[in-house]
Amino acid sequence: MNFKHALQDIVRPTTLIEARQLSAHLRAKVLIASETFQHTGSFKFRAAYNAAANVSQSELFTASSGNFGQALAYACRLLGKSCTVVMPHNSASVKIAAVRASGGIVDLIDVAVTSRQERVDAIARERPDAYFASAYDDLLVIRGNASLGVELAALDGQIDAIVAPVGGGGLTSGIIQGLRDCGKSIPVIGAEPLLGNDAARSLRAGCIVTNTTEPKTIADGARTVSLGARNWEILREGLSAIVEVPEKEIIETVRLLFHLANLKVEPTGALAVAALLTDPERFRGRSVCCVASGGNVDPQVYRSILEG
Amino acid sequence: MNFKHALQDIVRPTTLIEARQLSAHLRAKVLIASETFQHTGSFKFRAAYNAAANVSQSELFTASSGNFGQALAYACRLLGKSCTVVMPHNSASVKIAAVRASGGIVDLIDVAVTSRQERVDAIARERPDAYFASAYDDLLVIRGNASLGVELAALDGQIDAIVAPVGGGGLTSGIIQGLRDCGKSIPVIGAEPLLGNDAARSLRAGCIVTNTTEPKTIADGARTVSLGARNWEILREGLSAIVEVPEKEIIETVRLLFHLANLKVEPTGALAVAALLTDPERFRGRSVCCVASGGNVDPQVYRSILEG
Repeated sequence: MNFKHALQDIVRPTTLIEARQLSAHLRAKVLIASETFQHTGSFKFRAAYNAAANVSQSELFTASSGNFGQALAYACRLLGKSCTVVMPHNSASVKIAAVRASGGIVDLIDVAVTSRQERVDAIARERPDAYFASAYDDLLVIRGNASLGVELAALDGQIDAIVAPVGGGGLTSGIIQGLRDCGKSIPVIGAEPLLGNDAARSLRAGCIVTNTTEPKTIADGARTVSLGARNWEILREGLSAIVEVPEKEIIETVRLLFHLANLKVEPTGALAVAALLTDPERFRGRSVCCVASGGNVDPQVYRSILEG
Repeated sequence: MNFKHALQDIVRPTTLIEARQLSAHLRAKVLIASETFQHTGSFKFRAAYNAAANVSQSELFTASSGNFGQALAYACRLLGKSCTVVMPHNSASVKIAAVRASGGIVDLIDVAVTSRQERVDAIARERPDAYFASAYDDLLVIRGNASLGVELAALDGQIDAIVAPVGGGGLTSGIIQGLRDCGKSIPVIGAEPLLGNDAARSLRAGCIVTNTTEPKTIADGARTVSLGARNWEILREGLSAIVEVPEKEIIETVRLLFHLANLKVEPTGALAVAALLTDPERFRGRSVCCVASGGNVDPQVYRSILEG
């Protein structure tokens, strides 16, 4: 199990879905690059595996109540490394179970008593040989996500733009990096929840702007306080635009993907297609590749969206 | 629009999904061949296009309240032909809308007054130049579905069996035909609703056995009264076994595919994986390719299954 595979041998290729009914509805030619069938159900595995495989440490830890924790746990298991994931004690039990099922050690904290950062700092002191993996602000993470950019580079000539969700900026910076590696200049557009539009404000300001608190968007993969510094270095020049997506459009798009494309996505995974619903003029008649970043959604949340 | 494409150029390749979490749950190595992203959301497009493209008639009609009607309508539109679909007047409005959205003419009947067969016979008399397309009992349909068998033949050596749903037998007979064309002898196992187990009884009896009424299974794609004669000719020798799947297992599998594989399927599309849940001893430790035949499900039905 300690044998290191090259990233392209272990990562599953993205699933390209031509969405004819959705295209008719949105009046654009929509090609979905779905990462919902990636290992652990989201693009995060690309980053997590690349980080876990390329650090010398055999012990890794992270703070994540979402997809990155599960992805890192599974990547570490494949590589015979150990992985600790700091999670709030009131995280959804399915999420805790998913990290454990992937071989991770769950470190539960009561966030009213100890912040994530405090617990991360404490682990770093207790285990100086362990590697702290950021979900986005890490060059290995960006390089891992670049593997998706390399895949999408093959669509050059067939698409006018790539749209992908923005939280900490790990995915979009990775895609831009991968396109550059292939010498392709397909425009990359970010899709960010309007409720946490720090990346859009950062692009306007020309420097990293921070949300005062974690935004309460339903797109929980984008509940980040700010872009990472390493991501910003790439995004400040590399991102063509950001569409700020209201909650209503995120929810409506989860539904549209279910009805018109047979695709189950988590709310964050709907952001890119929701950008087309939010700013139809920008995309009308264009060929657009939308990245559906992940599919792991609380069944209760999903049911209530379908009911809506 | 009248240009005829070769079937393999127009059909979307099946989406192969390695389902790790589902495999762990079922204690078998499950590879899903998902037809939920096929044109019109089900494998039926393979058959419909092949039939529409290869008959000389420019007018086709069928009786279908489900996936075949939508698939035939869309295939005819691509080929510049006209398509009439006989449907009960109380069909779900989304299904009627789907046929119309695919370019079909919907011919609504009150089944309390006129049976489907009576209306089909009447259309055949009124329009002698039109071609009646059966959803399964037609050599062009079997040959169209054989395109999936040809794709799955490439898995030879990696899988121990292929499991696929059985209604009229169009899909399983097509897969067997496609494997034969490629000289492969991967065993094909049918998955049939226990509530309408005419195919299983037919195999045991050695001749076609008929249900007395249309079975009331939730797997509406398998609500057939009997196998087609042309399908039976292939299945009687070609099918390795049939697993009879209770309704409870069908419903549970729709849920499992949602939770453990991020896959949205209609109940009929869950039948093959449900066979593993129904008869675990048969499949334990084996590598099995399960065909998820389609994803078009009434949102109300899907929500109620998730709530279960």
